[in-house]
Amino acid sequence: MAQIVSFGEVLMRLSTPGFSRFEQARQFNVTYAGGEANVSAALSYWGHHAAHVTRFPDSPIGRAATQYLDFIGLDTSHIVYGGNRIAVYFLETGVAMRGSQIVYDRANSALAEMQPEDVNWEEILKDAKWFHWAGITPALSQGAADTLLAGVKAAKKLGVTVSGDIFYRPNLWKYGKKPTEILPEITANTDIVIANGENIKEIFDIDGNDFVESCVNLQKAYPGVKMVVDTKRTSISASHNLLRAYLWNGKELLETGDIEINPIIDRVGGGDAFIAGLIHGLITFDDQLKALEFGVAASALKHTIEGDALISTVAEVEAIRKGETSGRIKR
Amino acid sequence: MAQIVSFGEVLMRLSTPGFSRFEQARQFNVTYAGGEANVSAALSYWGHHAAHVTRFPDSPIGRAATQYLDFIGLDTSHIVYGGNRIAVYFLETGVAMRGSQIVYDRANSALAEMQPEDVNWEEILKDAKWFHWAGITPALSQGAADTLLAGVKAAKKLGVTVSGDIFYRPNLWKYGKKPTEILPEITANTDIVIANGENIKEIFDIDGNDFVESCVNLQKAYPGVKMVVDTKRTSISASHNLLRAYLWNGKELLETGDIEINPIIDRVGGGDAFIAGLIHGLITFDDQLKALEFGVAASALKHTIEGDALISTVAEVEAIRKGETSGRIKR
Amino acid sequence: MAQIVSFGEVLMRLSTPGFSRFEQARQFNVTYAGGEANVSAALSYWGHHAAHVTRFPDSPIGRAATQYLDFIGLDTSHIVYGGNRIAVYFLETGVAMRGSQIVYDRANSALAEMQPEDVNWEEILKDAKWFHWAGITPALSQGAADTLLAGVKAAKKLGVTVSGDIFYRPNLWKYGKKPTEILPEITANTDIVIANGENIKEIFDIDGNDFVESCVNLQKAYPGVKMVVDTKRTSISASHNLLRAYLWNGKELLETGDIEINPIIDRVGGGDAFIAGLIHGLITFDDQLKALEFGVAASALKHTIEGDALISTVAEVEAIRKGETSGRIKR
Amino acid sequence: MAQIVSFGEVLMRLSTPGFSRFEQARQFNVTYAGGEANVSAALSYWGHHAAHVTRFPDSPIGRAATQYLDFIGLDTSHIVYGGNRIAVYFLETGVAMRGSQIVYDRANSALAEMQPEDVNWEEILKDAKWFHWAGITPALSQGAADTLLAGVKAAKKLGVTVSGDIFYRPNLWKYGKKPTEILPEITANTDIVIANGENIKEIFDIDGNDFVESCVNLQKAYPGVKMVVDTKRTSISASHNLLRAYLWNGKELLETGDIEINPIIDRVGGGDAFIAGLIHGLITFDDQLKALEFGVAASALKHTIEGDALISTVAEVEAIRKGETSGRIKR
Amino acid sequence: MAQIVSFGEVLMRLSTPGFSRFEQARQFNVTYAGGEANVSAALSYWGHHAAHVTRFPDSPIGRAATQYLDFIGLDTSHIVYGGNRIAVYFLETGVAMRGSQIVYDRANSALAEMQPEDVNWEEILKDAKWFHWAGITPALSQGAADTLLAGVKAAKKLGVTVSGDIFYRPNLWKYGKKPTEILPEITANTDIVIANGENIKEIFDIDGNDFVESCVNLQKAYPGVKMVVDTKRTSISASHNLLRAYLWNGKELLETGDIEINPIIDRVGGGDAFIAGLIHGLITFDDQLKALEFGVAASALKHTIEGDALISTVAEVEAIRKGETSGRIKR
Amino acid sequence: MAQIVSFGEVLMRLSTPGFSRFEQARQFNVTYAGGEANVSAALSYWGHHAAHVTRFPDSPIGRAATQYLDFIGLDTSHIVYGGNRIAVYFLETGVAMRGSQIVYDRANSALAEMQPEDVNWEEILKDAKWFHWAGITPALSQGAADTLLAGVKAAKKLGVTVSGDIFYRPNLWKYGKKPTEILPEITANTDIVIANGENIKEIFDIDGNDFVESCVNLQKAYPGVKMVVDTKRTSISASHNLLRAYLWNGKELLETGDIEINPIIDRVGGGDAFIAGLIHGLITFDDQLKALEFGVAASALKHTIEGDALISTVAEVEAIRKGETSGRIKR
Repeated sequence: MAQIVSFGEVLMRLSTPGFSRFEQARQFNVTYAGGEANVSAALSYWGHHAAHVTRFPDSPIGRAATQYLDFIGLDTSHIVYGGNRIAVYFLETGVAMRGSQIVYDRANSALAEMQPEDVNWEEILKDAKWFHWAGITPALSQGAADTLLAGVKAAKKLGVTVSGDIFYRPNLWKYGKKPTEILPEITANTDIVIANGENIKEIFDIDGNDFVESCVNLQKAYPGVKMVVDTKRTSISASHNLLRAYLWNGKELLETGDIEINPIIDRVGGGDAFIAGLIHGLITFDDQLKALEFGVAASALKHTIEGDALISTVAEVEAIRKGETSGRIKR
Repeated sequence: MAQIVSFGEVLMRLSTPGFSRFEQARQFNVTYAGGEANVSAALSYWGHHAAHVTRFPDSPIGRAATQYLDFIGLDTSHIVYGGNRIAVYFLETGVAMRGSQIVYDRANSALAEMQPEDVNWEEILKDAKWFHWAGITPALSQGAADTLLAGVKAAKKLGVTVSGDIFYRPNLWKYGKKPTEILPEITANTDIVIANGENIKEIFDIDGNDFVESCVNLQKAYPGVKMVVDTKRTSISASHNLLRAYLWNGKELLETGDIEINPIIDRVGGGDAFIAGLIHGLITFDDQLKALEFGVAASALKHTIEGDALISTVAEVEAIRKGETSGRIKR
Repeated sequence: MAQIVSFGEVLMRLSTPGFSRFEQARQFNVTYAGGEANVSAALSYWGHHAAHVTRFPDSPIGRAATQYLDFIGLDTSHIVYGGNRIAVYFLETGVAMRGSQIVYDRANSALAEMQPEDVNWEEILKDAKWFHWAGITPALSQGAADTLLAGVKAAKKLGVTVSGDIFYRPNLWKYGKKPTEILPEITANTDIVIANGENIKEIFDIDGNDFVESCVNLQKAYPGVKMVVDTKRTSISASHNLLRAYLWNGKELLETGDIEINPIIDRVGGGDAFIAGLIHGLITFDDQLKALEFGVAASALKHTIEGDALISTVAEVEAIRKGETSGRIKR
Repeated sequence: MAQIVSFGEVLMRLSTPGFSRFEQARQFNVTYAGGEANVSAALSYWGHHAAHVTRFPDSPIGRAATQYLDFIGLDTSHIVYGGNRIAVYFLETGVAMRGSQIVYDRANSALAEMQPEDVNWEEILKDAKWFHWAGITPALSQGAADTLLAGVKAAKKLGVTVSGDIFYRPNLWKYGKKPTEILPEITANTDIVIANGENIKEIFDIDGNDFVESCVNLQKAYPGVKMVVDTKRTSISASHNLLRAYLWNGKELLETGDIEINPIIDRVGGGDAFIAGLIHGLITFDDQLKALEFGVAASALKHTIEGDALISTVAEVEAIRKGETSGRIKR
Repeated sequence: MAQIVSFGEVLMRLSTPGFSRFEQARQFNVTYAGGEANVSAALSYWGHHAAHVTRFPDSPIGRAATQYLDFIGLDTSHIVYGGNRIAVYFLETGVAMRGSQIVYDRANSALAEMQPEDVNWEEILKDAKWFHWAGITPALSQGAADTLLAGVKAAKKLGVTVSGDIFYRPNLWKYGKKPTEILPEITANTDIVIANGENIKEIFDIDGNDFVESCVNLQKAYPGVKMVVDTKRTSISASHNLLRAYLWNGKELLETGDIEINPIIDRVGGGDAFIAGLIHGLITFDDQLKALEFGVAASALKHTIEGDALISTVAEVEAIRKGETSGRIKR
Repeated sequence: MAQIVSFGEVLMRLSTPGFSRFEQARQFNVTYAGGEANVSAALSYWGHHAAHVTRFPDSPIGRAATQYLDFIGLDTSHIVYGGNRIAVYFLETGVAMRGSQIVYDRANSALAEMQPEDVNWEEILKDAKWFHWAGITPALSQGAADTLLAGVKAAKKLGVTVSGDIFYRPNLWKYGKKPTEILPEITANTDIVIANGENIKEIFDIDGNDFVESCVNLQKAYPGVKMVVDTKRTSISASHNLLRAYLWNGKELLETGDIEINPIIDRVGGGDAFIAGLIHGLITFDDQLKALEFGVAASALKHTIEGDALISTVAEVEAIRKGETSGRIKR
């Protein structure tokens, strides 16, 4: 039934209130979030039936996490229960010249201990249009990597479009494999890659003098890749950023203008909102640049909302895409 | 006893905390506010005895609303009790490129079901200097319109100065009358009109090539109108605005400079604070431009305060009027 | 797909924090709740796929309400959008000798303006086992009553078990019909009636010297009614209650012991939790008394939880049913 | 205009949230309260026009305190501004076997530095029915004692009924005078004295074998005293009390039954609510026992409300007086 | 310098506000706590210089935990930094018949990965009077067990009194050793053992027909053990308990009366407060029964305070020990 | 043991939440802070053992204040207990053109009633490197001035570096002495003076055509003074400032660039953070300009943190000193 399916770890997000430092916090705000689920949640708000696949411990905490995903509109019927703990991340939101801080505690999570047999991908994906993954999942464990690989292969087989956020954090790969051993096969089953030139070099060892050349060379190696997409953030301070994006579609480089964001309320999840916007645009519009702009507008809007998830309507994002950023009251 | 009397609906204001979206809010901040009461409340803080006339249900909610008006300094002894419900508005405060959203739920309110015989205007206004109304009231119901008309007529009779905020929201007029059938007679009994050229055209069908010409033509039709006042807001984002004002006094157009507001905490009630400042200035100063500037300063200050009501001293507003906007600590 | 289907108004619940009085509250806690949805939500926590049918305005507030129902586990795919406002209720939670206070503001709600053609009952109920309604719905408007009647008839036709909470508040019936004109036909299509002898007298004009005789006479008039169920609350104070229940199954009167609840955190929704527990028991157990006890245990547990909805596991309720009420820590 | 006039210090009340200890609190709840103002506030809720006379510093804090008194319904037009600081008290609310703790910081308050010439008692009391004072005021300073004495004399002269809460805390009398030098003259101008036998002994050096004998002897010495009233609290724990009251009217001893309060939310102000209830009863009913019971009921109800002030309707108190203490929901 | 030294894991405590369920919580209250640190913290409030030895990750979270221990009065100069994560426990506080729930997430904590060489016990204990440990520590890992063993041996060597809370949770022992392989040697170096007969059987395989016989037999096997202490909790509900304690001193069984606690605010840490009280009593009083009673009083008081730590003065505990449990206000 | 020793009043800081006005606040945030303690607290976070000397009342409030100083890392073992009250300051944080407001209530505080014999300076300072004071202390009372003078003399004798923040508020000197009678002797024992030219003129009656000349002349009069330091704040609004600093070392004037701060969360304590940074730099670096820049960076960072105290690591400040102010996320 789900049109959009995403797969990835969902963490308990424990953030200090306002701009408090960790040491000051006597309360944490608690939500549940993960890059891939963030993408699906935004799409769900925009009317797509979106299911997220993940694994939670079979405990009150796992139930609380599931209910939160229900709340942000996700179909949670494919969540797997088992394992010992939910991954956690601690967030202290920065302001002015003080950047936000994130402390992860994700080792040995329920998802990291997942195995391919936990998921019946063909069943889950049978009515889907789109499958989305991110590069963190295969970095967590062999089981997570294998489960993802099974997912992208099933998607490919069923003709489902696959997008992958090639997100490279070297310090995550601790289970004995290198990204270069794992990501190529997954990428070979992926249609749309979110990556910059540096990622392409580090992960695939593919060079280029500029972004376009890197993309061209990536497509040579991975002919299934139809688009490569990247964003550029100009960070004036933790409270003031500019955002734009690029899309290489195999023929030309599309590029948006900058959107100014000042002040920023919460930039975590901004990249996921961009991907969600792009996916919505590519599914809905017959205009890749408009889709890219919709992604940047969605990302900008996300920065004004506390929490990883972009809660919005299509109309709100579209208005920003069209340049209506003066913030007048809507009655 | 009251020097200032205002009349109009007071709504329960339910606002999401901080910049939360409606969907995120598990708490609403609750106050009670309305455009005309906001004007009186600001004047009360500045030392004027100000009474507000409205109608609340005779219920715990009506009592809570009354107590809130007591809290913001209003004389509540002329409030009428009856009817079935208090009007409500839901507010989500915007930030950066995301504008604030207001959802009204005001149909069938206690005030909309009010009748002229509920109020003894001559008694209430007998010691007053000033009576203030706004264009929303006659839009609500025939009873509300009639009650207001009785009020302005009594004021006129007693020599009380009348100001009216000609505020036109076409979607409010649902009881079968058009503004053009109702507002002319009320305006004929009004000394100071807050309106822009567009309002003058829409409501009175009076044209003009510019604001001054519209004002001149309005005064021709309504010779009792002594001044027409308007503000201009430049909206860079929901967090950053510039504000200025104009006043046509029948002879010349007075105009203030811009005040910059960055960041904005809550812009709802900003227009009411302007009117309050203008009224205070016209009562207190022998200088219309200074009064107009006091209005703009009051409005700017309001934007830094959560809630509809401007809580301030005369000295604070006067300092801003004089350009002391560097925000140094006062000890 | 849904096994359980309920139908009824969902209100925005605005409650003062802790035990604050309305006049003291500068914040309201906000959730969304209604008697029939409360029943379905509890059943959803216990593993039943439960859908709730209602009508919300097509607005940010309507979306927020839907998300809240998603959060408490309901299938919201059959919600209808339209109308002008969401019904609201204000709650002040009592303590010791001070009772809770509820102020309703539900006139002209989206549901009250609903029409039978808004719902395709046969589609919604096609896989259902159980349909639940309450006596408030037909009290709201002719449209609501007609929609409900269509629902129970469809359920009957499809062989779905129907339960009805005959809840009589005379002051709700304002649209020109009396309960005696409306409820008989609905009840004729209902299998399990929640009512006490007084309700049976007032609504159906059926007398009895005691509860059993009233039930026997009700069944004579409405042979489709298989069970009549009632609870008895002994109220020592707003903080301390005893709870028990009775069930007439046409042959014998089953009766549970009392469960003591001290202190009570929030008793709103306690009756709905009882019904949910009873339904779960009747579906799951082959023992009507055990089902009745499960209902009382569920209701007792609800009193310890803030909000209308009973968030619990089957194991938690079952433990209380078995008398494990000493409140030891679970690790 | 005021029917009820009270005089006394109003302190900033800084209380820890819930049952937190001082060391744990990172927030304090802040209200403004004092024994005599508490009496007037309760009377104001019950429809009496009640003014409170006190002195606040002319500062933002003094303005905030005034607004709070406006909020709880007091006429604040007779408040005097001057002095250096507002008195403060810190409250930690106890529970179970842990009692509440109060730390006072009231030396050198605006009221302690008050002088009789600050108040025009004859003007303030000219339309009053009742004047209320408490024994703390003359303990603070000579100026406060003199101001109070001027007040009771003016009241006597104008035929206003005077009640005095003879509240003796030896450690307050620090300005060089003893209560025995000050209180007799004030008491000679007082009609109704709230005191127990121990107070009568300590303050007036008047003995008695029991309460009645003490009262008789007090009346011999102070023939203007028409009634002596006392309450009796049985303290099972900080959360569970019983409350009753006695009234000697010169002829007989009236005595109420106990009201049980469990759990207690906030017992501060309970004695003031009793006095308010008694005053309301004596003004309104022609039945002294009923008035005394109304006082006990008001006091009991106060224990369920956070803050010093009893927010209630006459109907709520009357229902408790009649024994409706089962705490059922009011809809 | 420290008189009291404790050793053990400190966990981040994430508790839902009030009595909210995990699923409802959008905020967690966050403190840092552990059984042994709780003992030291209570002793620190009573004037003992108390140091706690533990291990935290060298991260903002580790720093926040340290600061919290500073806040509750502990000497944190012997904390060791390293490892990957802080242990976490989630707490949902129960009420009435609903018990509290604790979910642990403590595997692979910084302390579990500790090694004996991380701590210079002889340096730390050189001026100490008392060393306290609990049975959870050796259950976590071989390294933790070895570090503890080194600690008790050093204490023994330096003549420091050692107390051990023999707390047996079978599901904690996951690193391949059984308690029977580890605890005997640690216990052999311990003077005062907190344990019941069941623990003695399970851990030491020492039987007895009653508590005294078990103690006698334990002392035969472990002649260094001078006292065995146990508490007995009667749980009427999660909100209402009775508490008493027993002490076998090798000659006689001392036993206190029950203290009633109603309502309970937070019972977590109640056992640790008992041990702290006992230690304080044994150090300070020359009366073992009085020490035992002081422990029970301390434990009872802890139940009225949110958080694991008992914040109190000696005078407060002593008053409860003497039976002053009526909860009167202290001014 | 302490390397850093500071001396001065610590006040209870009661601040309104967010940007609320005093009149709006129903809660105050409560911490404990003072200029000199703020300096020590920042140094403690950076690894210096820092003790603060002050005087608190021997009360629950005094204990709460001590615990807060423990929390921010201070050695509180030299705090003296006695006196009647803790000083208080009320803070309303400004935004945009509205400046923050501070209302002090510090008369008759425990510290103001302190005497030199309360402190054994030679014992406290025996291992110290640095002693810090501020000009508010000698303004409070003769006792406070004498205690400070004894402190600087002891420091001089023991070779401890002394810094003094010559902070002149004329309205504080109320005990009969003028600064010119008191500050010269204290300054004669001070190595590093924080002051601007205006202070030097007002307090020491020493003139200069510019800052350097004032410094040169100050050094002539007080040859012990080795450095004079000043900061310059450019205040665009309450939310947007620029900050720089100057240092005269007897030979040359060192000057930093501006750091931009936008938005400001809380500027109180910004000057103290500067001094802490400077002290850390002078102790740690062999580069006075770098030390001065570290001070400005520390001050800027403080503006992003609520509360008087700068909670930070050396690395965080050093990054800002190096110009890393783009606020990127740290993971």
